[in-house]
Amino acid sequence: MNFKMMGRFVGKILLVEAVFMVPAMLISLWEKEYAAVWAFLWSILAVMATAGLLLAVCRGSRNLFLAKDGLACVGICWIVMSLLGCLPFYLSGAIPSLIDSFFEIVSGFTTTGSSILPEVEVLPKGILYWRSFSHWLGGMGVLVFLLAVSSVGGDDNGYTMHLLRAESPGPNVGKLVPRMKKTASILYLLYIILTVVNVVFLLLGNMSLFEAVCTAFGTAGTGGFGIKNDSIASYSPYIQNVCTVFMLLFGVNFTCYYLLMLRQFKNVFLDEELRLYLGLTLGSIILIVLNLRGFYATLGETIRHVAFQVVSIITSTGYATTDFDLWPGFSKAILLSLMIIGACAGSTGGGFKCGRALLVIKSLRRSVRQVVHPQKVQVVRVNGQSVGEKVLQNTNAYLAAYVIIIILSYLLVSVDGFSITTNLSAVLTCFNNIGPGFEVVGPTCNFAAYSTFSKLVLIMDMLAGRLEIFPILILFSRSTWRHR
Amino acid sequence: MNFKMMGRFVGKILLVEAVFMVPAMLISLWEKEYAAVWAFLWSILAVMATAGLLLAVCRGSRNLFLAKDGLACVGICWIVMSLLGCLPFYLSGAIPSLIDSFFEIVSGFTTTGSSILPEVEVLPKGILYWRSFSHWLGGMGVLVFLLAVSSVGGDDNGYTMHLLRAESPGPNVGKLVPRMKKTASILYLLYIILTVVNVVFLLLGNMSLFEAVCTAFGTAGTGGFGIKNDSIASYSPYIQNVCTVFMLLFGVNFTCYYLLMLRQFKNVFLDEELRLYLGLTLGSIILIVLNLRGFYATLGETIRHVAFQVVSIITSTGYATTDFDLWPGFSKAILLSLMIIGACAGSTGGGFKCGRALLVIKSLRRSVRQVVHPQKVQVVRVNGQSVGEKVLQNTNAYLAAYVIIIILSYLLVSVDGFSITTNLSAVLTCFNNIGPGFEVVGPTCNFAAYSTFSKLVLIMDMLAGRLEIFPILILFSRSTWRHR
Repeated sequence: MNFKMMGRFVGKILLVEAVFMVPAMLISLWEKEYAAVWAFLWSILAVMATAGLLLAVCRGSRNLFLAKDGLACVGICWIVMSLLGCLPFYLSGAIPSLIDSFFEIVSGFTTTGSSILPEVEVLPKGILYWRSFSHWLGGMGVLVFLLAVSSVGGDDNGYTMHLLRAESPGPNVGKLVPRMKKTASILYLLYIILTVVNVVFLLLGNMSLFEAVCTAFGTAGTGGFGIKNDSIASYSPYIQNVCTVFMLLFGVNFTCYYLLMLRQFKNVFLDEELRLYLGLTLGSIILIVLNLRGFYATLGETIRHVAFQVVSIITSTGYATTDFDLWPGFSKAILLSLMIIGACAGSTGGGFKCGRALLVIKSLRRSVRQVVHPQKVQVVRVNGQSVGEKVLQNTNAYLAAYVIIIILSYLLVSVDGFSITTNLSAVLTCFNNIGPGFEVVGPTCNFAAYSTFSKLVLIMDMLAGRLEIFPILILFSRSTWRHR
Repeated sequence: MNFKMMGRFVGKILLVEAVFMVPAMLISLWEKEYAAVWAFLWSILAVMATAGLLLAVCRGSRNLFLAKDGLACVGICWIVMSLLGCLPFYLSGAIPSLIDSFFEIVSGFTTTGSSILPEVEVLPKGILYWRSFSHWLGGMGVLVFLLAVSSVGGDDNGYTMHLLRAESPGPNVGKLVPRMKKTASILYLLYIILTVVNVVFLLLGNMSLFEAVCTAFGTAGTGGFGIKNDSIASYSPYIQNVCTVFMLLFGVNFTCYYLLMLRQFKNVFLDEELRLYLGLTLGSIILIVLNLRGFYATLGETIRHVAFQVVSIITSTGYATTDFDLWPGFSKAILLSLMIIGACAGSTGGGFKCGRALLVIKSLRRSVRQVVHPQKVQVVRVNGQSVGEKVLQNTNAYLAAYVIIIILSYLLVSVDGFSITTNLSAVLTCFNNIGPGFEVVGPTCNFAAYSTFSKLVLIMDMLAGRLEIFPILILFSRSTWRHR
């Protein structure tokens, strides 16, 4: 493990974080929320002091940077960034408990959107902004941002590739263009454009600029922190529909947008993952609308609520316009399944990812075919291209890790004595970075009732889910820490 | 697909079934339950007529018999055997609905033990015997029995190997001795000896012979159908403890008993799967006993109930001495996790199997190590021996199929509108061949409330679980049915 290089990296990430705290502080200053201003000021100083210390101590050393260093580095960056990022919540008194503040900011950065706050409208505006902004930054990834704006990796493509791979979701992270720095820039450019368009559409629905920006942050990162106590429920149908459309858009693999820019419409149209994602969304909407006959006054209202909730869950956003915990069992079962599948790889969405589900199903189908025709060599193809055995192996390892983490986390949070549904949905919603679960952690409730121990478990779940397990798992492996 | 050979095989299996119905008929005759006697008589005639027809039509043809034929053959045998095996229930009027009778016999053969009957004490003795005996036959496998007693496969080892592999649980079915027929005989010999010892111990606790035999059948097959409405609750602590010990014994890989016969104590002692199985059992008992402080009057009573329930669930038996649905959340969470893991491979128990869990965990650990040391070749070892890549690949495919089937089944049974916990535990308990679930399908309840459609889904789950997915999955693959 190359500790010095890693230290330098964490230092740089913290500088980015400090810079991004400034707008939040200015908002609090403008709104005359002086307690929050001081909280942000002290937080910025603390972050910068830590960053300076790390950059000063970890000079020199420019050794080989391996895949494991990249993974561990991303894991540590996210933990340190969250530990310091929760200071504004705590110091301003908005969240009186340190563990709750930590839970809230991890939920923000990982774009989960599970909250421990019973109401958010009482919070200072600067705090609300920081809370929503954490979604935006975490959605596309803070390391990807650093790669996009600085020459941190120089021309060392292998090195930056490890980092980008570790932070970006999906089984098979591709480069859009040969140079990683360029790839990162293109991703963030697309991300910013889509976010701005989202803000404009929300403004057209008579939202204030502040509300529009915060709501767009939560949508873009597929996060789910709202600025109203009832999430998006009290907004107009127009605003709700805008959110539905943009949540769906942010759940699409960003490579598709790049291909659209290059006018490769056919490739986008034939993309198997995109088809699965849209098919699942549409199919779920139809089934739930049928299941909910008579639940809402009109068919239009039903479709609006169902489309919103389905898209919110499959993209792992977690906004809500209605209490879906009151829906009948079949509808809830569909939502629970969508929680697991999640959005497209390479999007800001969480979950197992449609692309990975596709690989698992195809590799299972191959296993059956291999039994039927043992003499034939069977190749798994996605979008017409054969998938390497290594990728399939990793996908299966990912599934194993995914299942094991869910079972273990569920066991651990069960110590608090809540019901099976509450505990299981709490773990699923945190691990898949969604937000609301069922029963005690349902869409109208929050996570405050869990003990500190369970909150720590759920925090690890959120981080493991956002970073796709290995950057966190590797921190627990003894061989990672051994010096060569 | 070699339909003729398959037809002959199904015919022979049905003959075995007809023979085994005779004792049940004699018991009914002895007890003067004439409705049941007639029901058995007609059933035997129907089974024999079908068998005769199949054997007559499917003469000749002794072509190559492939792995897929073996798998498909096992799947079809079990379905046909169940379709005819449920006739005594239906014809005697013990279970007035045909789908319920089918559910009950599949639950019997697959050693699940989930019942649609609210009370069993009113049933004729012959019917109770047939119900319990189905566990015993299904536990070790009816094809294995056929291999043991007849020369169906001749000396064609490859052919019988496919069948034995398809019906025996576990990721890596080994032969005890080079000849398959001998292996099958040894397995059944051990099975019979253990069952007889179990009966003797139950008789020593003042059980009647009938009750002892039926209870031992349910224990040996790790089935769980009881002959009392309250399962094992009203029996003495001695009987309950005997059941605990024997359930535990029947959850052990039978290869271990063979090794004990050969005095290879060290190999048994060092067996990693056995250690995991016993470790999980002991650990779960300790944790639940701690969690249940004050729930029962004395510590002794607590330990007795907890040990019974833990062993009953991990071995997938499903007997109960107390309503564990009333236990606190953490205890229930442990039971739910044990439901998934299950007993040892090569035992009569169900679930994912400890041996497979071991492989999944080790192969995941290897994936992490491969990231840390990409240049080193990493081998997965169990009991000191390296595990082939093919076995690891199949284990991962099994996990994928396992997860997909659970999610799909859960979605399908959710149509009935029960709660998340009810539906999920119903699927888990049927697919893992356990018996009771939670809430509506809890230990004091039954599966009668589900619709016919859901019952069919659960029936497929039970069969897929008992036969380890592929024999059933392959029946749904188009290429299986294509003629070469």
